Amino acid sequence: MLIVWRVIYVPKIRLWDGNVGEFGFVDHLAQRLTPKRDDTRLAIGDDAALVECGGQSLAITTDTLIEGRHFPTNTAAFDVGYKALAVNCSDLAAMAAEPAWATVALTTPSIEADWCDAFIDGARAALDGAQVDLIGGDTTRGALSVTVSAIGTVDAKDATYRHAARPGDLIAVTGTVGDAAAGLACLDAADDVASANTTYLVQRLSRPEWRSGAVLAGIAHAAIDVSDGLLADLGHILSASGVGARVNADALPTSAALAAWIEQQISTRRRLQLTGGDDYELCLTLPADALNQARNALDCDLTPIGEIAAEPGLELADAEGRAIDAAAYGAAGWDHFGATHADTN
Amino acid sequence: MLIVWRVIYVPKIRLWDGNVGEFGFVDHLAQRLTPKRDDTRLAIGDDAALVECGGQSLAITTDTLIEGRHFPTNTAAFDVGYKALAVNCSDLAAMAAEPAWATVALTTPSIEADWCDAFIDGARAALDGAQVDLIGGDTTRGALSVTVSAIGTVDAKDATYRHAARPGDLIAVTGTVGDAAAGLACLDAADDVASANTTYLVQRLSRPEWRSGAVLAGIAHAAIDVSDGLLADLGHILSASGVGARVNADALPTSAALAAWIEQQISTRRRLQLTGGDDYELCLTLPADALNQARNALDCDLTPIGEIAAEPGLELADAEGRAIDAAAYGAAGWDHFGATHADTN
Repeated sequence: MLIVWRVIYVPKIRLWDGNVGEFGFVDHLAQRLTPKRDDTRLAIGDDAALVECGGQSLAITTDTLIEGRHFPTNTAAFDVGYKALAVNCSDLAAMAAEPAWATVALTTPSIEADWCDAFIDGARAALDGAQVDLIGGDTTRGALSVTVSAIGTVDAKDATYRHAARPGDLIAVTGTVGDAAAGLACLDAADDVASANTTYLVQRLSRPEWRSGAVLAGIAHAAIDVSDGLLADLGHILSASGVGARVNADALPTSAALAAWIEQQISTRRRLQLTGGDDYELCLTLPADALNQARNALDCDLTPIGEIAAEPGLELADAEGRAIDAAAYGAAGWDHFGATHADTN
Repeated sequence: MLIVWRVIYVPKIRLWDGNVGEFGFVDHLAQRLTPKRDDTRLAIGDDAALVECGGQSLAITTDTLIEGRHFPTNTAAFDVGYKALAVNCSDLAAMAAEPAWATVALTTPSIEADWCDAFIDGARAALDGAQVDLIGGDTTRGALSVTVSAIGTVDAKDATYRHAARPGDLIAVTGTVGDAAAGLACLDAADDVASANTTYLVQRLSRPEWRSGAVLAGIAHAAIDVSDGLLADLGHILSASGVGARVNADALPTSAALAAWIEQQISTRRRLQLTGGDDYELCLTLPADALNQARNALDCDLTPIGEIAAEPGLELADAEGRAIDAAAYGAAGWDHFGATHADTN
């Protein structure tokens, strides 16, 4: 599920209740659409659904990207194709699934050969190194948007689920967070995009790397990809698992570019890192003694940022253990904490 | 693949070549996106892709429906949900696959609870009697459109492929054709929708029944669903199979409602039945001695309309064997006959 660009665009669809937003809608859907098939393992409510096929499990996810909402108007075709595939592979990674196939439904007002070739180049670039076939899709005329469905393989018993966090688990995050939100701010402020830091941050927004979450199968307990913001996404894990968390806001991994760009503004860094979406890093929980195994398996950094507690609720603190009021960092990340909710995939 | 409403809306996207339209685009995609995985059986180029999973085969298809293009503005939410699921199940049926799972990506400008509930009611109604779980999707804000991905099960050796028609095969079509195009004309002309015939024709457009193509596995050779018009869709089979056909235009199955609505205008009937899209009947080829077996397996009529010939090209004739100029019934059905092309799924 993908809700980004909230800084400059109107945020989530709200329905059924002024407070629950899309998450309330998804709850409603999940209640109405309970699975009937024996071979449906997991339907609405996680980063991907899981189904059984010939004794294997497949993870299936779908995300739509709309021009002006999930990417700025006049984004390069390459980046549109890139991001559409990357964010769906990221959803599979959050289930510890290995992407295998994808379909691409492209809607465009006036398609041109050069644009489409660049779009395909971008889509393939996002899949670089992964064995993923683009096996079909659809082309229609309309306002620019892309809907990708991605299918991956995973052993259901080793998959990482939102509901699988356990008290005592470490909470860890891959790579660095806050970069994409800073990149969006750079674009919004028309910052000097020639500077190396700005270029890096904007690149993190427009061409997010998705992490190889499949290597975490059987190692991590719960996982989610950071698309809506760390607090919001961790909140999904806490709600689904019926647990709480203590998080050290000063432990969040920060890129050199972000550190340089924000200079010493701690409050800005925290806001970007706690509430900024679109990083597509993985936030996961795992036993403390599995941390090194997870680090060795991943090809990126993995930083502990806190731990899962038995009591519901989230305690946010600084490096000295002083409490931080998380609500001060944006209600977006807090809309749906107290309530049980399910996310679409 | 779904291209409809050409009567009143701007037709297909055209690119790469002024003549080849979307089909040329799909050719181009197929050439650029050749599969790399051993477990991808069939990628771009048929009604659905086929992949292997645990010794079983899955058929996967994706179709987008856009308001004002694939359904009229202000279509009832129920009908939007119904049609989005039905047309994707129809694509699976054309591969002789049994639908099992679907994801729904809904984009809407201002979603409302009642609208969404009716949409879901429609989606479920389209699946009535079929064991299909809606396992996820996405909700975004934008111009109204729906992209469904549907996944079904099939034994690859028994699936019906566009390339599998053989000289001597009968060509047969399920149900009746031309009804949906007549329904569109009724809407367009604001005909009296209270008349039973008009109501029936409009219903055929807005709530198409998808056929249980899975029962044709191992019986029929080639199949396609009639979404673009019988001539256009049969043309896909002929091109992919490298064969030709003789078709008796007067043998096309005609509903009582259509017969009454057009009265004695043979040229109108032929145009609607040969070029009208959106019927979602199956056009299939099979050995003559398998016709009864297919009829017994299906829960609808199956009418022979011609036969497959070794020589490429399509000969159209009336009941007395007099040649009919097919081009007179719309170039849309003929754009892509001579050329080898592949269709998306």
